[in-house]
Amino acid sequence: MAQVKLNTHISNSYNRELENLRNSVLTMGGVIEQQLQDTLDALQNNNLALAEKVVLNDPKVNSMEIQIDEECMRIIAKRHPTASDLRLVLTIAKATTDIERMGDEISRIASLIARQKAPDSSELKSSMLAIGNLVLEMLKGSLNAFARMDFEAALSLHRQDDEIDNHYKKLLGSTVLEMQENKDDLGNWLEVLWALRSFERLGDRCKNICEFVIYLSKGKDIRHFSIESIKASLTN
Amino acid sequence: MAQVKLNTHISNSYNRELENLRNSVLTMGGVIEQQLQDTLDALQNNNLALAEKVVLNDPKVNSMEIQIDEECMRIIAKRHPTASDLRLVLTIAKATTDIERMGDEISRIASLIARQKAPDSSELKSSMLAIGNLVLEMLKGSLNAFARMDFEAALSLHRQDDEIDNHYKKLLGSTVLEMQENKDDLGNWLEVLWALRSFERLGDRCKNICEFVIYLSKGKDIRHFSIESIKASLTN
Repeated sequence: MAQVKLNTHISNSYNRELENLRNSVLTMGGVIEQQLQDTLDALQNNNLALAEKVVLNDPKVNSMEIQIDEECMRIIAKRHPTASDLRLVLTIAKATTDIERMGDEISRIASLIARQKAPDSSELKSSMLAIGNLVLEMLKGSLNAFARMDFEAALSLHRQDDEIDNHYKKLLGSTVLEMQENKDDLGNWLEVLWALRSFERLGDRCKNICEFVIYLSKGKDIRHFSIESIKASLTN
Repeated sequence: MAQVKLNTHISNSYNRELENLRNSVLTMGGVIEQQLQDTLDALQNNNLALAEKVVLNDPKVNSMEIQIDEECMRIIAKRHPTASDLRLVLTIAKATTDIERMGDEISRIASLIARQKAPDSSELKSSMLAIGNLVLEMLKGSLNAFARMDFEAALSLHRQDDEIDNHYKKLLGSTVLEMQENKDDLGNWLEVLWALRSFERLGDRCKNICEFVIYLSKGKDIRHFSIESIKASLTN
């Protein structure tokens, strides 16, 4: 496993602060994982109360983002981190924004379930569960990669987003067919489209988290390059 | 006008660095404004080449984000900013991510125009231009508020997003009606839906920029509170 060695500092309390900061991000990520898991369970079992709980829980995620931001500011002001530590703190500040917005997307999907807007179709349900489970797997992987600063895992997960995109495109096609057949129910099918799009965007945001890991590991900003060209430049 | 007085520093070169950083964000914002203006012109005049140019121009926005991030890191490492300066630098790093993603949304709309995917309907065109111009106005206002750190303007613009949302909902309704009437052309109408959603998301991101201004002006994080409760707490 290609892990990044984090700097250690003479000051134990500084080490602890950086470690706590990383842990806060992981705690926030854990809450998001649970939110998505609950959303998928609610979908599977038609559990409206559980879906409602996910929606009501979203403000918790929001306040975690604000706390982590404040912690980042405090560490920079007090410790004057340089080089890789500074990069870590700034990247955490950016990553938490992505995690918070993941929370918004999950809450949107849960709200669709709570409001019973999705047409009653077992085929649709199993397709949505399939893409949802792919996203959940990618989310767990990305957060693990972030926790361990595991460059190889991040690189491999980054590619997994293509699988989600393919799944999404297929589902989009079949949803459009359904819309053609059920034009009186178009409003509800539109809600399904938004939910599918939210799954796709969750995949995109997992990709962002992986890019942050790659950036922190290699000091390369890959946000706007193809993963192949990055890999080539790293192995050359 | 309620402007924020920025700190001035004994070191002239430090002042200049902070000023340059702010200017870089405004330059990036200016490019985005032009991209959206060009997209709307392309839509108005059926100018496919201009739409294509917008799409090709997007990587320029991406590289500006990376440069500004690096500049933020450099200033923090070299100058150890504290309090409001540090908040400014961190907020700029976050705001440029929003501006870069605005570029992605604009590029998506331009791509729809370039590929001539939108159904040929003068009514649709004028509706899209109407929401597009609302968004352009909000974008200009938000960037101006950011440039001047104008709290009042940011607060008033923040509300303008509701107008965009209402427009969006109305357009969504009429698009669904069109989809019911033109089910053979459903694929193209879906593209229209995505474009409308991109306009709506651009409005959301302008709102984010306004929230950054309010945060910098008052030190209050309003991302997850209602604008009314913020205003009340500030005037009490």
